Amino acid sequence: MEIKYKIVLKEIEEVLDQSNFSDKGNFIRKILGSQQILVCGAGRVGLMMKTFAMRLNHLGLKCYYIGEMSVPKTGKGDLLIIGSGSGATRSIVVLAEVAKSKNLEVICITTAVNSIISNLSSSKLVINCPNKDNNSHLRESVQPMTTLFEQSLLIVLDSLVLDLMEELNESNLSMSERHNAIE
Amino acid sequence: MEIKYKIVLKEIEEVLDQSNFSDKGNFIRKILGSQQILVCGAGRVGLMMKTFAMRLNHLGLKCYYIGEMSVPKTGKGDLLIIGSGSGATRSIVVLAEVAKSKNLEVICITTAVNSIISNLSSSKLVINCPNKDNNSHLRESVQPMTTLFEQSLLIVLDSLVLDLMEELNESNLSMSERHNAIE
Amino acid sequence: MEIKYKIVLKEIEEVLDQSNFSDKGNFIRKILGSQQILVCGAGRVGLMMKTFAMRLNHLGLKCYYIGEMSVPKTGKGDLLIIGSGSGATRSIVVLAEVAKSKNLEVICITTAVNSIISNLSSSKLVINCPNKDNNSHLRESVQPMTTLFEQSLLIVLDSLVLDLMEELNESNLSMSERHNAIE
Amino acid sequence: MEIKYKIVLKEIEEVLDQSNFSDKGNFIRKILGSQQILVCGAGRVGLMMKTFAMRLNHLGLKCYYIGEMSVPKTGKGDLLIIGSGSGATRSIVVLAEVAKSKNLEVICITTAVNSIISNLSSSKLVINCPNKDNNSHLRESVQPMTTLFEQSLLIVLDSLVLDLMEELNESNLSMSERHNAIE
Repeated sequence: MEIKYKIVLKEIEEVLDQSNFSDKGNFIRKILGSQQILVCGAGRVGLMMKTFAMRLNHLGLKCYYIGEMSVPKTGKGDLLIIGSGSGATRSIVVLAEVAKSKNLEVICITTAVNSIISNLSSSKLVINCPNKDNNSHLRESVQPMTTLFEQSLLIVLDSLVLDLMEELNESNLSMSERHNAIE
Repeated sequence: MEIKYKIVLKEIEEVLDQSNFSDKGNFIRKILGSQQILVCGAGRVGLMMKTFAMRLNHLGLKCYYIGEMSVPKTGKGDLLIIGSGSGATRSIVVLAEVAKSKNLEVICITTAVNSIISNLSSSKLVINCPNKDNNSHLRESVQPMTTLFEQSLLIVLDSLVLDLMEELNESNLSMSERHNAIE
Repeated sequence: MEIKYKIVLKEIEEVLDQSNFSDKGNFIRKILGSQQILVCGAGRVGLMMKTFAMRLNHLGLKCYYIGEMSVPKTGKGDLLIIGSGSGATRSIVVLAEVAKSKNLEVICITTAVNSIISNLSSSKLVINCPNKDNNSHLRESVQPMTTLFEQSLLIVLDSLVLDLMEELNESNLSMSERHNAIE
Repeated sequence: MEIKYKIVLKEIEEVLDQSNFSDKGNFIRKILGSQQILVCGAGRVGLMMKTFAMRLNHLGLKCYYIGEMSVPKTGKGDLLIIGSGSGATRSIVVLAEVAKSKNLEVICITTAVNSIISNLSSSKLVINCPNKDNNSHLRESVQPMTTLFEQSLLIVLDSLVLDLMEELNESNLSMSERHNAIE
């Protein structure tokens, strides 16, 4: 009874091999240079972004997922990190626009280099992957819907955590120390 | 077309008139004296507790709802505030026990003065109201299930906010200033 | 040590006494006449709307809170119920617009009878209460921010539950039977 | 500016190559044979389990994430699917025990073949990966905390979706048709 993980991992690797992470240095500098960080996304993409929000806190940064109870007032000097495959999910576009109007900087991870959210972003990582508005390419994946983007997103986010650990001189031990065990 | 709010408000007032808030001063002192505050509850009670977590943040306190992404490590000097009608919801009992083992102080709002959660708590406010384990009394309310407890809980929590505003010298304006408009 | 619930309950009663529920019959008919129901709101208002979503399920209706994992495809014959004090929260406006474009009917509870969300709604209940865009009136309440709207909203929603129980011939017992005890 | 995804993907592949999925046929039969499905997990693991709950709904199954508003009453004939690295997270153990007491069947994905949750489960998939109670092995991964388990879990869950698509004769198109676009 085989689990089909080999196919899945191969799809992710192919996507990431063809993606454009040339702005990574800038992306990380913006994370490290901001005072407070907000994170958002819709659907399964939002769940991936939540995992990143949790790890940014474990890294000692001040990070909040939009909609949660402890989100503080934010403004100039703060950052909104968006995950959006299409770069056009309307409720997320609205959050990006409101954030800009409050002088937050916006950065994103997306498949759509020329989307509304991309254009509002001062840094972007582009995963070369079909999205929901892009059905012709979608069937290059055996996986349904935008699964391949969501998986690739998680791998990119957790790879960024490795970079941030180096930059911040953090370790498994120091990060585990920040974990709340009451869950 | 009348809305039946008169009946509902009367039920809440009768419950609160017969409730025991003698420990209020102590309850508030524990909130003001702790460094970080966690909040939890199950079901509709949990939703009421979430509204309180949000307001404690608006008051300038450091408060987090359990399960959210930004919950920090907590320990001695920190506080867990529990809402539980029966005082015996098993997943909440577990959180209380883990919190105690990590040296957090636990306080609660409940209907059940001798419940497990009450007994783990160093301060409690007792709303005199039927709970889910207490079906014989439940039908004194025309409202289904534990609705009356949940409503009474919200009113008590928001009344505590009024006290905390006084203690902290906070106003509508100062609290509004802490609200995050990106939602 | 008094809890200030008397003030709070009085504020709620005054608000509801001056509110306009003339469309209640229509509002309830739309709930009863739809196949699937979506519910949404932002911030503390969203938490109140969640309590209503849960009770609609206990009443045997098919109701989902937007953003949760089990929300099905919706379209013609389905209903979106919005809670919004200002009737203009941008992320909620977007949801209303998308819902309309998918042929859902939209109804709302609001303070703002001429707001965007009101105008998109085929039925509305209007709570006569200050909202966040309406600061001049706001200080008629001793409570901070939009607390008074949120409380009034909960009471209205739970009052609607009483009406729906009658219409559907439901009881505390029949509703409790639908409650999931694994929480 | 390289993203370190190669390291991450290699770690996941090594973990999955050494994992034990011998019970997969049974695991899938239990999913297909149950009437209603509940899903749960804590922290980042819970977020991965949420992605699975969403996809099970897209597959046409009746699936709910514990704690959400639309969870129905469950009992005999229903299933609880747990994700838990350690198999011992206390709040999740409680959910498993309550589920068993209500005659739900319990199955899990875990790293801990002899844990409490494993022992309550009638089927399990075992990912051979360090967990939070197992620190000696943990540093075989360059990634912090239980990241490697969470990633491996997502890949396993999405691989199960591929199997379920075959079993249910579902396609990208049929699944996309069930997606709710109001988000």
